[in-house]
Amino acid sequence: MMSEISHFVIPRGFRFGAIKAGLKASGRTDFALIVADEPACAAAAFTANKVSAAPLAVDKENLKATGGRVRVVAINAGNANCAAGQAGLDAARATCTAAAEIFGCSPQEVFPSSTGIIGVPLPAEKLIAVMPELASRLGSASDHFQQVALAILTTDTVEKTAFARFEVDGREVRMAATCKGSGMIHPQLVPHATMLVYILTDAEIEPQTLQSYLNGAIELSFNRISVDGDTSTNDTVLLLASGASGVTIGAENEEFRQALTQVCTSLAKQVVGDGEGIGHLVELRIDGAVSDADAVKAAKAIAHSMLVKTAWAGADPNWGRLVAALGYSGAQIDPERIDISFGELPVCRNGGRAEEFDEEKAHAYLKQEKFSIAIQLNQGKGSCVFWTTDLTTEYVHINADYST
Amino acid sequence: MMSEISHFVIPRGFRFGAIKAGLKASGRTDFALIVADEPACAAAAFTANKVSAAPLAVDKENLKATGGRVRVVAINAGNANCAAGQAGLDAARATCTAAAEIFGCSPQEVFPSSTGIIGVPLPAEKLIAVMPELASRLGSASDHFQQVALAILTTDTVEKTAFARFEVDGREVRMAATCKGSGMIHPQLVPHATMLVYILTDAEIEPQTLQSYLNGAIELSFNRISVDGDTSTNDTVLLLASGASGVTIGAENEEFRQALTQVCTSLAKQVVGDGEGIGHLVELRIDGAVSDADAVKAAKAIAHSMLVKTAWAGADPNWGRLVAALGYSGAQIDPERIDISFGELPVCRNGGRAEEFDEEKAHAYLKQEKFSIAIQLNQGKGSCVFWTTDLTTEYVHINADYST
Repeated sequence: MMSEISHFVIPRGFRFGAIKAGLKASGRTDFALIVADEPACAAAAFTANKVSAAPLAVDKENLKATGGRVRVVAINAGNANCAAGQAGLDAARATCTAAAEIFGCSPQEVFPSSTGIIGVPLPAEKLIAVMPELASRLGSASDHFQQVALAILTTDTVEKTAFARFEVDGREVRMAATCKGSGMIHPQLVPHATMLVYILTDAEIEPQTLQSYLNGAIELSFNRISVDGDTSTNDTVLLLASGASGVTIGAENEEFRQALTQVCTSLAKQVVGDGEGIGHLVELRIDGAVSDADAVKAAKAIAHSMLVKTAWAGADPNWGRLVAALGYSGAQIDPERIDISFGELPVCRNGGRAEEFDEEKAHAYLKQEKFSIAIQLNQGKGSCVFWTTDLTTEYVHINADYST
Repeated sequence: MMSEISHFVIPRGFRFGAIKAGLKASGRTDFALIVADEPACAAAAFTANKVSAAPLAVDKENLKATGGRVRVVAINAGNANCAAGQAGLDAARATCTAAAEIFGCSPQEVFPSSTGIIGVPLPAEKLIAVMPELASRLGSASDHFQQVALAILTTDTVEKTAFARFEVDGREVRMAATCKGSGMIHPQLVPHATMLVYILTDAEIEPQTLQSYLNGAIELSFNRISVDGDTSTNDTVLLLASGASGVTIGAENEEFRQALTQVCTSLAKQVVGDGEGIGHLVELRIDGAVSDADAVKAAKAIAHSMLVKTAWAGADPNWGRLVAALGYSGAQIDPERIDISFGELPVCRNGGRAEEFDEEKAHAYLKQEKFSIAIQLNQGKGSCVFWTTDLTTEYVHINADYST
């Protein structure tokens, strides 16, 4: 996997661009387009939140109508177009209609996405007004792709991208992805998404096969992260395959599966690493659960505990808060068989303080920007890796500072 | 219900006192005793956390052995005696044995309680060393009761007490209660407790009947509050009936039920009102749920959302975050039938921004120290009232500030 953008990693068959539509108070670019030269095969996943944004409803309708084909992805930041009733749906559909006219496709081949404040109807007219100009500026170079990565950001502090390449019979398949997400991050995508994620490949893959690859990769990446435990109304992951590489990928291609999982995991970790107000990026490794699902349950209770997260903010080795969270997690545990290590430092054994526990060392370990906590439940063979953040005063400032 | 302590509200049949055992770093009183003149009838409820403290295990054994009789309640603050293995159990039992010798009862008639840091074995010898002196100082006056209320506090900023009186055939029944709790507050007591709560009455009530009254009152009070969503390992509610009033209370006494519910609700609200770092005390009223349990589910998702709680900290009328939390709450909802008011101010109707929504007014309303949010789900007849707090930078400071 590569982490730097170069011309040689951008999948063939797509054009990109972004512009200022006037939705972001900051005045930055806030409207992006990804346009496939021909209808691309699509797989998608959306939030499990029962309240979901208008563009998600339109996306689901459109994907169903086309059997999983997308020509144009139209993404705005600065307004989530959620909880806006019929006006919200009308705005999403108006965006589709405008894009369809410009690019000569059906409105159903357009995939609208929105992120930003909830409850304020999206002013689609602002997107429609700048769309012709944006259409005239699209390009397939890495800097065009970069424009999309920047325009979709909200409280994010850095753009998030990931790339992969592999060869099949001497022919190269490329994958490029970008996403946004920093707060309201606890994706539960169905088949499992609080972010906007766009993954592009020039492989040729049928929509159903593509969906199966996507579901598998999401389960190990975006569904294993949490910043604040709030599952968004707008989470969307879209995977588009242009087929422009001329390489057909079947249902059991290990290279494609690995490339996709790596790209998704990289983006997922970038989202957490840019979590609102983050002081520490925490990797939780749960082992010995009765099932992988139970391991995730245990990890989530810890990742969502305000007391655990604030302890991390202070590099406080108060492992008792971890044990307490495991106790109410709903996962099957035996309090007297829990072992916990901070990195390589044992802190809890058999549910009590480990003999080797060294508070100074544990505190020093937790002062690192990134650290790892390993929990052995000694109940079975289930396991998971989960990424989360601490809870800092900065998080509170970001989400509480309000001025009328 | 009365809220001031006077001699005339302290139930007869009990003596009280507190002393410094050297467990609190602050050097304040940290060990309290409540001693019944004769074995009192007892009902109790403990945390649903699978990790629970040693004294809770001993309490359950003891109540079972005695059929619900308690002579001595021995409460320490400064150490939770949790996740301390066999040493923890030994410490709790040693406390019982010492108290039994001093007060001439069986060790099973002693009810130990602990609150404070998790994972550090309780130094029972410190409690045992000061117990004789404390025993010699006990008294039945209101200031003795007050000593208990103060000694059990940890991060609490004020003591919490509630009182009730009523008459049966011209004879007075008294009820006095005290509790502690400020952080790790999301009680789930079984039959439902993150606090230590002690409720005393001089009514004569059999343990089984007492338990039934207690369960009913807890469901509407302690199980309807949350500060941080962390369910503690030590939550305990103990209700003791000395019988010293000579008034026997049967299974269907409405006055007793009301008095108990009022006392429990008062204490529950005092706990939230003293929640760690609290800026705002929030009353959530959920109506129109398919069941009361579903209403509580909706209330808890809101009460535990970091984004909702930080918005409250900033008096930010961002109702979209409430809608998002309802969406992932698991409660049955129809996004297009949700109505929300801040006090009397409509902010959301049919899932979208209410026409009357006035951002300035809503912001001004949320600036109040206490405010109320009413949510109508329009799904059925289930409802609940739930009390919670905002999430402030002060909460983070309290729980993150760590120095080696």
